[in-house]
Amino acid sequence: MTTPYQLYYWDGLQGRGEFVRLALEEAGIPYQDVARQKKGMPALMASLDADKVDHPSFAPPVLRAGDLLIGQTANILLFLGARHGLAPRAEAGRLWANQLQLTIADIVVEAHDTHHPISTNDYYEDQKKEARARARDFRAHRIPKFLDYFEGVIQHNPGRGGYAVGSRLSYVDLSLFQLVDGLRYAFPKTMDKLAPTWPGLMALYVKVSQRPNIAAYLQSKRRIPHNESCIFRHYPELEK
Amino acid sequence: MTTPYQLYYWDGLQGRGEFVRLALEEAGIPYQDVARQKKGMPALMASLDADKVDHPSFAPPVLRAGDLLIGQTANILLFLGARHGLAPRAEAGRLWANQLQLTIADIVVEAHDTHHPISTNDYYEDQKKEARARARDFRAHRIPKFLDYFEGVIQHNPGRGGYAVGSRLSYVDLSLFQLVDGLRYAFPKTMDKLAPTWPGLMALYVKVSQRPNIAAYLQSKRRIPHNESCIFRHYPELEK
Repeated sequence: MTTPYQLYYWDGLQGRGEFVRLALEEAGIPYQDVARQKKGMPALMASLDADKVDHPSFAPPVLRAGDLLIGQTANILLFLGARHGLAPRAEAGRLWANQLQLTIADIVVEAHDTHHPISTNDYYEDQKKEARARARDFRAHRIPKFLDYFEGVIQHNPGRGGYAVGSRLSYVDLSLFQLVDGLRYAFPKTMDKLAPTWPGLMALYVKVSQRPNIAAYLQSKRRIPHNESCIFRHYPELEK
Repeated sequence: MTTPYQLYYWDGLQGRGEFVRLALEEAGIPYQDVARQKKGMPALMASLDADKVDHPSFAPPVLRAGDLLIGQTANILLFLGARHGLAPRAEAGRLWANQLQLTIADIVVEAHDTHHPISTNDYYEDQKKEARARARDFRAHRIPKFLDYFEGVIQHNPGRGGYAVGSRLSYVDLSLFQLVDGLRYAFPKTMDKLAPTWPGLMALYVKVSQRPNIAAYLQSKRRIPHNESCIFRHYPELEK
């Protein structure tokens, strides 16, 4: 079957690919999750290979849309948002959505670095002590700073409906859902404690999870469970 | 004097603001560097304040363009690139330029974390040991991985002129100049050793530095010297 889009992302983890999956699922767009299919890995590797494609990516996720090969999560969402009504049409709104998505990308890097503060080339077990220190800072300072910011964005949005941007759902809302979901998995105690300080963000989280396409997706096998291969990892010792 | 643009960025360091400055300087667009002017700091702080502006940024740089207030470096460059001929006009080229800029942003985060691997809230002196470990990994693995990638992009670009994207200078080239310049400042031995492996990138670095507007800017007082308040810091112990 030919689908309009092929997504290239590592099998076995949600990772950054999940931000793209949520947009495709919400929009109801058929797509192939290439590396999760038989013999999909060589195609994923080719998307990173300058000898094989015109616009090789540094890392997945990569989206193929016909002749276009697009890398970097926020860039893929910029493209999908414009094509499928998941972002405002006007320039000001489009830039604002992209700005918020890039800020989400920033905290995602920091969430990853809580378990790999020294090197992505070494095991977590080899940087556990440093991970504990970095996670402590992340929980105490960075989660509140970023999520307070997003709460403020939602509270000050003049559009109705409790969304981040304007009066309609955008890919930013889907990504905020994923961010909160990942943080709740990785740092449940911290998030339980702080959740009441973000009424707008938590309401948006619930609202996104109840959208028919998203709810169906989350129940499906296409949604890979959170796990310790991912950006958001639950290591109880990092929450002590 | 009214200028078309106001840039809000911390005074005293190049930081992420520099990627925006280089684009404005190359395009010859007058701009105010607000926080470097008398009484500029309150205006910068207001750009981050949800009670004072419609689209508050999480952090500088922020660019004001008339009614638009735009945050996130790559987002500002996306806007300026389209307006001032510093990016391809066609969608495929625009997305490719944005993708490369986001990949530059990724290594910039990692360069910062070499001196602050545990917490941005603590002094470098309090995380020196961890900084040494992270810097070792960054020099051995991450600089080569990222810069080999950019070298491949330049080498495989079918456009003439040795640029990253197409046959004309784009903001990506300016940002690659800044990335190389910062890394040369922070890790001079590493960069001297590896530079011959990146002939295309180093040629582009020289070429950008010789563009009339850029050369004039680099000689001017508007260019803040590299220093240890910045992302790219020269701590000799991090190169041992």
